[in-house]
Amino acid sequence: MTKRTITLNCDMGESFGAWQMGADELVMPWIDMANIACGFHASDPHVMSRTIELAIQFDVMIGAHPGYPDLQGFGRRSMSFSEEEICELLIYQIGALKALCESKNAEISYVKPHGALYNDMMRDKSVFRAVVDAVSCFNVPLMILASGNNQDYLDIADIYDVPLLFEAFADRTYLANGMLTPRGQANAVLTNEEAIINQIKQLVDYGKVTSSDGFVIPIEADTICVHGDNPAAIELIEKIRICLRER
Amino acid sequence: MTKRTITLNCDMGESFGAWQMGADELVMPWIDMANIACGFHASDPHVMSRTIELAIQFDVMIGAHPGYPDLQGFGRRSMSFSEEEICELLIYQIGALKALCESKNAEISYVKPHGALYNDMMRDKSVFRAVVDAVSCFNVPLMILASGNNQDYLDIADIYDVPLLFEAFADRTYLANGMLTPRGQANAVLTNEEAIINQIKQLVDYGKVTSSDGFVIPIEADTICVHGDNPAAIELIEKIRICLRER
Amino acid sequence: MTKRTITLNCDMGESFGAWQMGADELVMPWIDMANIACGFHASDPHVMSRTIELAIQFDVMIGAHPGYPDLQGFGRRSMSFSEEEICELLIYQIGALKALCESKNAEISYVKPHGALYNDMMRDKSVFRAVVDAVSCFNVPLMILASGNNQDYLDIADIYDVPLLFEAFADRTYLANGMLTPRGQANAVLTNEEAIINQIKQLVDYGKVTSSDGFVIPIEADTICVHGDNPAAIELIEKIRICLRER
Amino acid sequence: MTKRTITLNCDMGESFGAWQMGADELVMPWIDMANIACGFHASDPHVMSRTIELAIQFDVMIGAHPGYPDLQGFGRRSMSFSEEEICELLIYQIGALKALCESKNAEISYVKPHGALYNDMMRDKSVFRAVVDAVSCFNVPLMILASGNNQDYLDIADIYDVPLLFEAFADRTYLANGMLTPRGQANAVLTNEEAIINQIKQLVDYGKVTSSDGFVIPIEADTICVHGDNPAAIELIEKIRICLRER
Repeated sequence: MTKRTITLNCDMGESFGAWQMGADELVMPWIDMANIACGFHASDPHVMSRTIELAIQFDVMIGAHPGYPDLQGFGRRSMSFSEEEICELLIYQIGALKALCESKNAEISYVKPHGALYNDMMRDKSVFRAVVDAVSCFNVPLMILASGNNQDYLDIADIYDVPLLFEAFADRTYLANGMLTPRGQANAVLTNEEAIINQIKQLVDYGKVTSSDGFVIPIEADTICVHGDNPAAIELIEKIRICLRER
Repeated sequence: MTKRTITLNCDMGESFGAWQMGADELVMPWIDMANIACGFHASDPHVMSRTIELAIQFDVMIGAHPGYPDLQGFGRRSMSFSEEEICELLIYQIGALKALCESKNAEISYVKPHGALYNDMMRDKSVFRAVVDAVSCFNVPLMILASGNNQDYLDIADIYDVPLLFEAFADRTYLANGMLTPRGQANAVLTNEEAIINQIKQLVDYGKVTSSDGFVIPIEADTICVHGDNPAAIELIEKIRICLRER
Repeated sequence: MTKRTITLNCDMGESFGAWQMGADELVMPWIDMANIACGFHASDPHVMSRTIELAIQFDVMIGAHPGYPDLQGFGRRSMSFSEEEICELLIYQIGALKALCESKNAEISYVKPHGALYNDMMRDKSVFRAVVDAVSCFNVPLMILASGNNQDYLDIADIYDVPLLFEAFADRTYLANGMLTPRGQANAVLTNEEAIINQIKQLVDYGKVTSSDGFVIPIEADTICVHGDNPAAIELIEKIRICLRER
Repeated sequence: MTKRTITLNCDMGESFGAWQMGADELVMPWIDMANIACGFHASDPHVMSRTIELAIQFDVMIGAHPGYPDLQGFGRRSMSFSEEEICELLIYQIGALKALCESKNAEISYVKPHGALYNDMMRDKSVFRAVVDAVSCFNVPLMILASGNNQDYLDIADIYDVPLLFEAFADRTYLANGMLTPRGQANAVLTNEEAIINQIKQLVDYGKVTSSDGFVIPIEADTICVHGDNPAAIELIEKIRICLRER
């Protein structure tokens, strides 16, 4: 079996005005893809510009990370929008980031929706269709959750001629059906470092994860999502990076 | 002297969520250039999309109309930003509108700042420079106020290779120095229809206006700004349109 | 049977910054209770102040009309908040309006939630409890929808010692179970003036309405909600007012 | 000369939604007065509630800390409002905090404006008058900057029957005229711990400070403003606290 080349992606540029979030300077050197917030759930034009410059400096691919217009809720609350409106608010945000990138001779390389919009897209095919429709305007891939049924999403995305990138999570457990264990549940998040590294090795070497109830399930992932919001998390990213290089 | 071809431009797409502003459907058929608000002082992605479609329907040129991030103040309050931040918030807004245009096979043809940002740009050369810098990323002209000293602005814009469009106002009076009478003053706004039509004839036929204290001053304008916020205003736009056709 | 004294209530103060909504000056003379928006879904401190003054001028009772923090969606989208957070955002908004009232020697006389918060409160008893909890801090009644099961809500409100006011709608049809026909359905809104007046007469004289499928159902209402967003609506309010006076 | 009893006040509750700011839990035990942000430049109803509870726990006086409506700028940008509007936006914010306090059987004990509003109030007597007018509705004192001309402000506040509290800054240098050295200047902020402690001793023991150019000037202060945004700052607060106890 050929080993997969797997990249690391991380949400970046989530500060807002005077409020700092994340340690972007410390994380950027270790990742391949920076999902940059676009001003609706986090970030502002100044933060976006600084984050683009940081990504350029470390030669990291830039992805648009649009969300619902809800700063107070950090885009984590589902909001009721028509499919047309979802398409519009995505084009708005991606276009804004794209123009800021182009002003610095950079470009956006993919789109990954944020928070509740990401969850709604995975859960509701009409939302997914609206997202794909918006992304099709930019000739870049869309990043979504790798699960047992990647093909369902590929079939829809093909209609709009939008390539998909599938991501797995380093620190989340999986259900037997290939979906993530919902955050509400006790064992949803992996905190043991060894367990996280093992999950990544299994993903990279075999394209599989072991669900929390012991089933080995296929998860075909192109990229792994990591988090960099505290010193321990950043140390872990470095270890994941080294683990991936050794594969 | 050759008569000038002068266009009509009007601020459009200034509704926000459930709040309606302006009679865009009634105004669009009579104008040449639609200055579309970009979501910071007015409008939202849905309103922007509807307004772009309306402009396409009536073959009206689309201009980005960015402003300060101040919905409650409708972008009419000056806000303290560094030149870098002004440049960034303009690129963000123009990029967002541009992407929405491109998703409908339309394009933006120019940029005209709104409200306090427009005034700050005319008053403060460092703000003007930041605006020109932002507009230079989009290869379109910048629309500013025609005044006695157009050349000062042209000299700066040339450095950034940004063409300028100069606009005059149909319903505002001028000072002897070629600037607009400040809105606070009693006679700042022309309300008499005949006076407005006469001012337009003088602008179009002679490239001049008569200041409120009786001086005839040169105002080289490419376009005239009209307002469409009430039935009388829309009737007046029609009359101005007819007057321009007859020149 | 004793005839009921029924008041008219109307949502007021829904303008925001430069955006006008409603014809508050024309409606205020005809109503008894003004539900004043509190700045989260509509209004701002200046609009609230002007609306309070208008209510004082016409001797109209002032109610706080708080909503979800969603200007763009006008508070019409349900948002995910914990019960504690709902309680907090209600106290915040009611407290703000109360202080503005007291600065003009007026007071708030009741609370009526707006839009999606109103619907969530009627649908979900845990939201209703959070609302009642918040209102209990202000020693005023809470206005909710009169339906077939008023008693269920009274039982909960009693625990918090909060009186309830029940409102009926002049221009909405009812289901056989005493709930409103959902807005999505074809016959949800009464547009025929005679039908509206008849529904009001039936409410006032008999405490009943006839459901859209022909059942006569008991609806015990203290107040009737009217809308004043267009000239025809305002004319209708006058007719309803006259009809109520004649009872 | 009698030694003054001087309190410590600190800006608190400046988080917003998912964004953390300040170490309120660590600072609260050491201060006497918590200036709690009111949701316009920072904070939200949930953060306000948590901060009120923390103040109650450590028996710290609660002050309303209202600002301009500018989250992105953290209320640090001056905004153009009429005196009437300033009064209204203050009453709104103070009323909101007051209601949240009362829901927990606490109360607000004073008002201290934030950021640009604070500076505008000190600089422009018409803004100061609007602030005093708003505070007069709540029967609490207003906290302002202690300077060489306290009496000017007392004369105006007396008209509205509003007591004033004067604050000095632990870590800012003073000009010979008793005003703070503007932040832009090199020596505006004291960073040397000994210098800060000495300034406080001089304030407490003699009611004087030594200006950066060597003049000893009278500064009559009731309270000293400290900052708690990093571990070193919190350590310093503890030292200031101990120093004050020893006086």
